[in-house]
Amino acid sequence: MGWNKVAIVGVAQLKFGEHFDKSYEAMIEEVYLDLLASVDKGVEPGEIQAGWIGTGVASLGGWEAVSGSSLAGCVGLTGIPVTRVENGCPTGSDAFRNACLGVASGVYDVVLVIGCEKMRDKPSDEGLLAMGSVGHAILTRAGTAPAQFAPQATRHMHEFGTTKEQMAMVAVKNHYNGTLCPYSHYQYEVTIEDVLNSPMVCWPFNLLDCCPITDGAAGAILCRADLAGKYTDRPVYVAGFGMASTHQFAFEQEDFTSFNATVKAAEQAYKMAGVGPEDIDVVEAHDCFTMTEIINYEDLGFCEKGKGGELIESGETQLSGRIPWNPSGGLLAKGHPLGCTGIAQITELVWQLRGDIISGQSEKSQKRQVEVKNGYALQHNVGGRGVGNSCVTILTIRKD
Amino acid sequence: MGWNKVAIVGVAQLKFGEHFDKSYEAMIEEVYLDLLASVDKGVEPGEIQAGWIGTGVASLGGWEAVSGSSLAGCVGLTGIPVTRVENGCPTGSDAFRNACLGVASGVYDVVLVIGCEKMRDKPSDEGLLAMGSVGHAILTRAGTAPAQFAPQATRHMHEFGTTKEQMAMVAVKNHYNGTLCPYSHYQYEVTIEDVLNSPMVCWPFNLLDCCPITDGAAGAILCRADLAGKYTDRPVYVAGFGMASTHQFAFEQEDFTSFNATVKAAEQAYKMAGVGPEDIDVVEAHDCFTMTEIINYEDLGFCEKGKGGELIESGETQLSGRIPWNPSGGLLAKGHPLGCTGIAQITELVWQLRGDIISGQSEKSQKRQVEVKNGYALQHNVGGRGVGNSCVTILTIRKD
Repeated sequence: MGWNKVAIVGVAQLKFGEHFDKSYEAMIEEVYLDLLASVDKGVEPGEIQAGWIGTGVASLGGWEAVSGSSLAGCVGLTGIPVTRVENGCPTGSDAFRNACLGVASGVYDVVLVIGCEKMRDKPSDEGLLAMGSVGHAILTRAGTAPAQFAPQATRHMHEFGTTKEQMAMVAVKNHYNGTLCPYSHYQYEVTIEDVLNSPMVCWPFNLLDCCPITDGAAGAILCRADLAGKYTDRPVYVAGFGMASTHQFAFEQEDFTSFNATVKAAEQAYKMAGVGPEDIDVVEAHDCFTMTEIINYEDLGFCEKGKGGELIESGETQLSGRIPWNPSGGLLAKGHPLGCTGIAQITELVWQLRGDIISGQSEKSQKRQVEVKNGYALQHNVGGRGVGNSCVTILTIRKD
Repeated sequence: MGWNKVAIVGVAQLKFGEHFDKSYEAMIEEVYLDLLASVDKGVEPGEIQAGWIGTGVASLGGWEAVSGSSLAGCVGLTGIPVTRVENGCPTGSDAFRNACLGVASGVYDVVLVIGCEKMRDKPSDEGLLAMGSVGHAILTRAGTAPAQFAPQATRHMHEFGTTKEQMAMVAVKNHYNGTLCPYSHYQYEVTIEDVLNSPMVCWPFNLLDCCPITDGAAGAILCRADLAGKYTDRPVYVAGFGMASTHQFAFEQEDFTSFNATVKAAEQAYKMAGVGPEDIDVVEAHDCFTMTEIINYEDLGFCEKGKGGELIESGETQLSGRIPWNPSGGLLAKGHPLGCTGIAQITELVWQLRGDIISGQSEKSQKRQVEVKNGYALQHNVGGRGVGNSCVTILTIRKD
């Protein structure tokens, strides 16, 4: 039914957090070794024919993360093509999409995609992140992430009566999930009161409505679906994907209660996979802010427009609910290292679909294993320049 | 014989040079309109299903060039996926390669690739280019482009007796070609004496041994080879391509008279296209420094190792020679706006293979039209972190 031309045969991620003691290259090396080890029947480095590296914010400390040799060189995969993809917050998921296209093209049989981001080190005064807040004299002054996502939040509250308490419930849910995920940056629970009483960042976002700045690395090994049996007896297939780039500036959104790019990316992905939201068992979606998760419920088709606040309040997106969202802790608790985020979401979903969390993680962690009914999972990012870019990926364990 | 799954049905480029009066977005818009107009039978924007944007050095003036919406948003292609590719000097040609994979995957029928770079504006003190010279305390101090390419030049001179005069002949040839190319940044001839007497930059490179810093934009429209007839009766096919990422630091080169990445990328491209250097009619290859062109002769298989100096001296790579190299003026005269360079080289080769220079340009410019015998052309870039990345693309007008 789905596209299913590409299979995921290995995934890995490092614990998210502060890695002042590891270089960008050291993080890539570590996740690469974990990745090779994650392939059930093994894979030789020499079998990997091409690579993609997702890094959003390069050059914080020099030339690191610039060009494909940043990946190829440090893990010794010398001589294969490696493309660096940058696409704001969907950097990792877009690198994954390009890797899928590479395999489906018939040019490469087995490929590697790694996302790596060091965001805690030296935030250069003139680097990209600073540019967002200082930046261009007219166009981007105060164009920080909270300021870019806030207009959707205030408008959603105004149009649909969504409340600060409902927003806080997203943080409560995702932080709880984060305590069950050993890869999560934050490992503590929060209450609605904690969120409402945390310092104001940019109305209506208090500190605990916002995701942290995080270091992280994650990766996947992909191959032609018909070759998957060589590497594992339990491949996860790429049922479909979508990506949309829509506009340059946040003020260009067509509708300030929605993210256009998400809606369009989801449309492509559902069509390609031949499924709808009702077929999805588990979601990892872009909760950079609490309200973003509420809007994602609507944009991705999991509830009617304006009903996102009610959906979080219903408990249906909790681990024990009808359709668990962000079992890993999401961006809010697990963290958001741009180029890595999408690939780490895919890693979590592969583990969930395969039941690897039950077999491979601690007793406490096992509590975040969701029930797999239909065999489909959905991954989502939205962001980049003007919040105008989104990727959606649908994964499945169903071969048909 | 060749891969030939993807056809080029439109190409365009802006004049290279100093575009202080145009924004990054304005350059993209201008080349996009030229690109649509370049498709013989026309193409509607709505037919374009995906895009790739090659920009190496982003964010010089704010958020510009960050993420795919930088392209999609400014030309109104809202809702399609657009990936930003960065890969150092091969950024443009690697964006082109990824666009080819996208079409060959069967997911997208008609796609767009644009390369754009504004390098003359505000060189941020902490931006990428400055990092190369100041950068990491140990690893990249003085890691400027001339310093990264110089060791190959001095070693080539030492091993093979290649001379400063032979190097200067590359500048003489390419600057002459540049005077015939209305898209070239520089429009003047130089003599061997001019080159030898120009200020020393980094031994053995005098100023005229080095390419300039340039603004530019170029683009191509690609489609499935079997759909090409809808758009043009004279498609140019992608016969093959190769890319290699090899190492992170210039000191890691295996052989200081050669660029490993070029050798490996060429191997892949020739194999995929089913041709060899003897089948190529015209070359646009990466002459960032005069010696780079001499080494490219050898790395790409156009002469024996160590004989590059003799090849330039023989005159065989001149416009009137057996195998013309860099008819556009090359990086030395035409310029090197990273993300744009590879795509502009492809644009020149499409024009050359089709004979468009005779039909569409001034009488003086027509002198740079080469003789097309076998119907194959080769494009090449090398650079990025540690000069460890190279792309080679082989184009053909032969359908078989």
